Amino acid sequence: MNRLRKSLTVLGAAGVTTLALTGMAFAQDEPFAQSPDETAFIFNTLLFLIGGFLVMWMAAGFTMLEAGMVRTKNVAMQCVKNIGLFSIAGLMYYLVGYNLMYAGVDGGYIGSLGLWFADDSAALAETAADFGNGGGYSASSDWFFQMVFVATAASIVSGTLAERIKLWPFLIFTVVLTGLIYPIQGAWTWGGGWLSEMGFSDFAGSTIVHSVGGWAALVGAIILGSRIGKYGPNGQVNPMPGSSMPLATLGTFILWLGWFGFNGASQLALGTAADAIAVSNIFANTTIAAAAGVVAAMILTQILYTKVDLTMALNGALAGLVAITAEPLAPTLGWAVIIGAIGGVIVVVTVPLLDKLKIDDVVGAIPVHLFAGIWGTMAVPLTNGDASFATQAIGVVSVGAFVMIASLAFWLALRFTIGIRASEEDEVLGLDKAEIGLEAYPEFGQGSQSY
Amino acid sequence: MNRLRKSLTVLGAAGVTTLALTGMAFAQDEPFAQSPDETAFIFNTLLFLIGGFLVMWMAAGFTMLEAGMVRTKNVAMQCVKNIGLFSIAGLMYYLVGYNLMYAGVDGGYIGSLGLWFADDSAALAETAADFGNGGGYSASSDWFFQMVFVATAASIVSGTLAERIKLWPFLIFTVVLTGLIYPIQGAWTWGGGWLSEMGFSDFAGSTIVHSVGGWAALVGAIILGSRIGKYGPNGQVNPMPGSSMPLATLGTFILWLGWFGFNGASQLALGTAADAIAVSNIFANTTIAAAAGVVAAMILTQILYTKVDLTMALNGALAGLVAITAEPLAPTLGWAVIIGAIGGVIVVVTVPLLDKLKIDDVVGAIPVHLFAGIWGTMAVPLTNGDASFATQAIGVVSVGAFVMIASLAFWLALRFTIGIRASEEDEVLGLDKAEIGLEAYPEFGQGSQSY
Amino acid sequence: MNRLRKSLTVLGAAGVTTLALTGMAFAQDEPFAQSPDETAFIFNTLLFLIGGFLVMWMAAGFTMLEAGMVRTKNVAMQCVKNIGLFSIAGLMYYLVGYNLMYAGVDGGYIGSLGLWFADDSAALAETAADFGNGGGYSASSDWFFQMVFVATAASIVSGTLAERIKLWPFLIFTVVLTGLIYPIQGAWTWGGGWLSEMGFSDFAGSTIVHSVGGWAALVGAIILGSRIGKYGPNGQVNPMPGSSMPLATLGTFILWLGWFGFNGASQLALGTAADAIAVSNIFANTTIAAAAGVVAAMILTQILYTKVDLTMALNGALAGLVAITAEPLAPTLGWAVIIGAIGGVIVVVTVPLLDKLKIDDVVGAIPVHLFAGIWGTMAVPLTNGDASFATQAIGVVSVGAFVMIASLAFWLALRFTIGIRASEEDEVLGLDKAEIGLEAYPEFGQGSQSY
Repeated sequence: MNRLRKSLTVLGAAGVTTLALTGMAFAQDEPFAQSPDETAFIFNTLLFLIGGFLVMWMAAGFTMLEAGMVRTKNVAMQCVKNIGLFSIAGLMYYLVGYNLMYAGVDGGYIGSLGLWFADDSAALAETAADFGNGGGYSASSDWFFQMVFVATAASIVSGTLAERIKLWPFLIFTVVLTGLIYPIQGAWTWGGGWLSEMGFSDFAGSTIVHSVGGWAALVGAIILGSRIGKYGPNGQVNPMPGSSMPLATLGTFILWLGWFGFNGASQLALGTAADAIAVSNIFANTTIAAAAGVVAAMILTQILYTKVDLTMALNGALAGLVAITAEPLAPTLGWAVIIGAIGGVIVVVTVPLLDKLKIDDVVGAIPVHLFAGIWGTMAVPLTNGDASFATQAIGVVSVGAFVMIASLAFWLALRFTIGIRASEEDEVLGLDKAEIGLEAYPEFGQGSQSY
Repeated sequence: MNRLRKSLTVLGAAGVTTLALTGMAFAQDEPFAQSPDETAFIFNTLLFLIGGFLVMWMAAGFTMLEAGMVRTKNVAMQCVKNIGLFSIAGLMYYLVGYNLMYAGVDGGYIGSLGLWFADDSAALAETAADFGNGGGYSASSDWFFQMVFVATAASIVSGTLAERIKLWPFLIFTVVLTGLIYPIQGAWTWGGGWLSEMGFSDFAGSTIVHSVGGWAALVGAIILGSRIGKYGPNGQVNPMPGSSMPLATLGTFILWLGWFGFNGASQLALGTAADAIAVSNIFANTTIAAAAGVVAAMILTQILYTKVDLTMALNGALAGLVAITAEPLAPTLGWAVIIGAIGGVIVVVTVPLLDKLKIDDVVGAIPVHLFAGIWGTMAVPLTNGDASFATQAIGVVSVGAFVMIASLAFWLALRFTIGIRASEEDEVLGLDKAEIGLEAYPEFGQGSQSY
Repeated sequence: MNRLRKSLTVLGAAGVTTLALTGMAFAQDEPFAQSPDETAFIFNTLLFLIGGFLVMWMAAGFTMLEAGMVRTKNVAMQCVKNIGLFSIAGLMYYLVGYNLMYAGVDGGYIGSLGLWFADDSAALAETAADFGNGGGYSASSDWFFQMVFVATAASIVSGTLAERIKLWPFLIFTVVLTGLIYPIQGAWTWGGGWLSEMGFSDFAGSTIVHSVGGWAALVGAIILGSRIGKYGPNGQVNPMPGSSMPLATLGTFILWLGWFGFNGASQLALGTAADAIAVSNIFANTTIAAAAGVVAAMILTQILYTKVDLTMALNGALAGLVAITAEPLAPTLGWAVIIGAIGGVIVVVTVPLLDKLKIDDVVGAIPVHLFAGIWGTMAVPLTNGDASFATQAIGVVSVGAFVMIASLAFWLALRFTIGIRASEEDEVLGLDKAEIGLEAYPEFGQGSQSY
């Protein structure tokens, strides 16, 4: 007798109870009769779980990237913001987000309000009926996978607005972004709403996830203003180098790893050989697009600045990943190289452009997630015959307009109530001491002496 | 001809040899006839392997958490201790632990002594006989999964006793903890011993893993005493802030990720749709409990201290995870939020309490793993009708009593032989220089100058 | 209607197109009829994908290990080199590498030139014909898995040559190593070339991956010379301690984790219970060999130097892993302990030996990957009756000779054209400022002041 046997008894209890409700025949204590659709059910669910934990891991990637790209005096703040936003995203997606995005959208603009509950009866009934759609999947595995995507959108905002936003206003905006803004626009496409009916195509979310974070960040950056001292009176841009390049690099590798889940599991099925081939092609395209983004950024910075810029190489990887996200399945590897490389070029070109506009994006999230996200979305018709440039443009613009307007409203509401910007004194002192009450590196950070 | 074909030949050789012993029909060179139970065998094994590598990864999480929470002068020591303990745990579980825990416990108190060998014959026979229990699993996958749990218990001790314990006494205690203490009490429940017969329920180890580490750490902390300067003569508590908040945060995210393996794969089967649903529900409950722990800790520290405390938010996540570990399957998401949130509250409330008792727990492991572990174990009957408060209490107390007595005996034996505490001089200098002979950050750490 | 249904439509389009070419019956819109071989196809593919993302993650491990082992002034350079080499490896393996290694080698010395394309027709035909070999696998999953191995070989070189090699010569050498040197020697064994026909056995690449990186690094280190100040005029060796021990430790844990994919997925199949047992045995052997390497290195350094050396413990883990890589399936756990422990001993003994020869290997990659790789390759016959010492020696020597000669040619070509070594001024200043134009830790690194 060992742990396995015990557990089967436990499962017997829990499993049978659950399944009794649905009249299914999968209970442990009956003779085991695994149908092809039950196998597919397990594979589909497993894809969601593996994809989900990889995307969850991206939360650590954003945290490390941002912790490495801000100055020591604001590092702990980024850590708090990121673990906080990931937690809020999960809770909000349970409380309202999932159902707003997926429950009864039916060609419209929004789902329904209400707590999410795991209901496996429909999927199990389909699976048992063996009706030939490749099998169902567990409801919770789907919720888990969709939930970690929400957090990704929120992470993007955190990076752009670093070093001068106050903690609680940021967290409150996160509540709104993950509970309302993200799910509502998500319902339009992934929830089966009007954009989906038009034929808008965004496989894993160049627009639906990345540009959403990017638009919210852009609006936030404009309202919040730039960091003290970032832009000089005569148009000069003062570099404020990040505190730890290895942490920023680690964060980029974590994100690259997580993206296999982000794009690969967005195939949403692994129950057939065709699905397994699709997921594999997505893996290959995803990694080669990132690689092309890195190499493009390295060569371009070498040409433009006579030196390879590490942060541009890192953002080149991310831009390649964002660009391939809208359509990681249809391209050949050659197309994936082109799509990713253009993503890398976009970052190198647009980072200084934002600085010229005095839009202070601490980690370069707007070029990476918004600009490369638009590029990736518009590039879908190049390789996917079912998509059209016009419909893609409608998707990009409508999502952008909605997110900008909604973000603007909430950012302004926050600004004119509790305020969103740290005091000048706190910003100079560093948000770690001012808002968190500790230092990220108490023994060797320079803390308040820098800037 | 490519690598796959070569490998099938290789497998042919190794596989057939192994299988010949068991008379099974799964050899590669016979016609392929995959039964439903063979598919379930593969799924079950795969769950152990994925769960196992995720839990193995938690060793890195503990290392980063502890490296970030100690002062620079003791960082390398924590690195040595953690890679050392993970290695010792693996070796001891092979040499004595697994069989002490699982071999012939049969309602009793202890298994048998002896090296562990992979014996797949029984599982394969069951699988081939198609007798309807959802299929077997590979013996090594089970060993691997159980082994990484042992290491988790040892990691907990490492954190509490940091900054003043000598290296080799700690490692020797680890030998005892992983080779004797953990497996013996583990036999009582997971090995099918007396607690299991009573109906004690601890799904993934709030008591069996986390409280065991916590009790051993508590006894160790009392015997070892507090760090020099931690508690002033007039009752004041001197903060000794950790050296790197981003590493502590990274460690927490790693642990959160690893916990999907810890709890999810403790379902111990993935061969049926019911199992896939169970694992998915566990993933959802696990992440939402952690999220609730974070939010609870953030709100509570904001109220109590008017600032959000990063280390409390991190420990809130961990406490939420520990709390849900005893029963991650039965709760609804709503219950999981409550269980995790109370875990977060427990940490915020009990960390200062330990300080009042002058029990110096460097990383807060006792509140997280012991107190939240007890809470999670006692909360099982709230959602699992098969558990009772009385039996849960018997499990908590009996495991606690055994681990405390055994730990006390070994800690005292070590103290009165080779000694466990670093000299005052070494502690002030830092254990890195004193015991390891190098510095963690030679170019920017302050080393011996701090404190 | 939700995201799943949408995606099935998308897959319908893409999947059917692909599959139509092959005449297979797996399209989504036909009745679902999953054959045992289709299930095996999915399992095999999934193993490649999981193994592949774990090995991809090793790129982050090498980056962290190297970033932690160099001085602050060269940390960003290691980050650039590692993300650059991983990207180049992917692109080169697509452009020429894969086909050089696997296309039509047929007992010979080299494959064919040409871009790689995903062609799933053969595997699907085999799968549909149900001809009993355990099923096929997706072509892209295979490419992905093989590609990440190439990057590993290149990472090894990066570590040894740190702190004095210029960026672009290193990257150009990476192009040659990943596009030509690695695939050509790889064709000899894994591509079905002459070494494979002789019976040379290297399960996951102690020789084919690790020694290849090691030989290229050794030749590079000799040509490049040692760092300024490393070896004094009177034979003394000046320690140049690494900048961050926790990052080096993190890197080691990442590599340990990734190695489960490296060795485990080199089974190349998961479609039968026998395969699942094999992969599990590989996991167990892999982790216990690493553990034995750590403990051996810790005990030996305690004896030799009266202190445990953290970097030796870390390299002990890696040496144990490299040593078991040539044959992770056949050994019992006891044999795996021995093989790994000897790997750990080799590192402790040979690191000072290289210093005596004034070969400056910054991270100890030559002892770990070359010496332990040779040991592991020669140890195969101890546990695998199909291998012979003579053939193993022929494999080690022939791969070594080829890689040394080819590396020598390319290193010399680079040296006499664009030069490979940074100027003395740049080396003293630090390569981060000199070549990358930023500092890894601008606020607390000592940058140019150190050494």
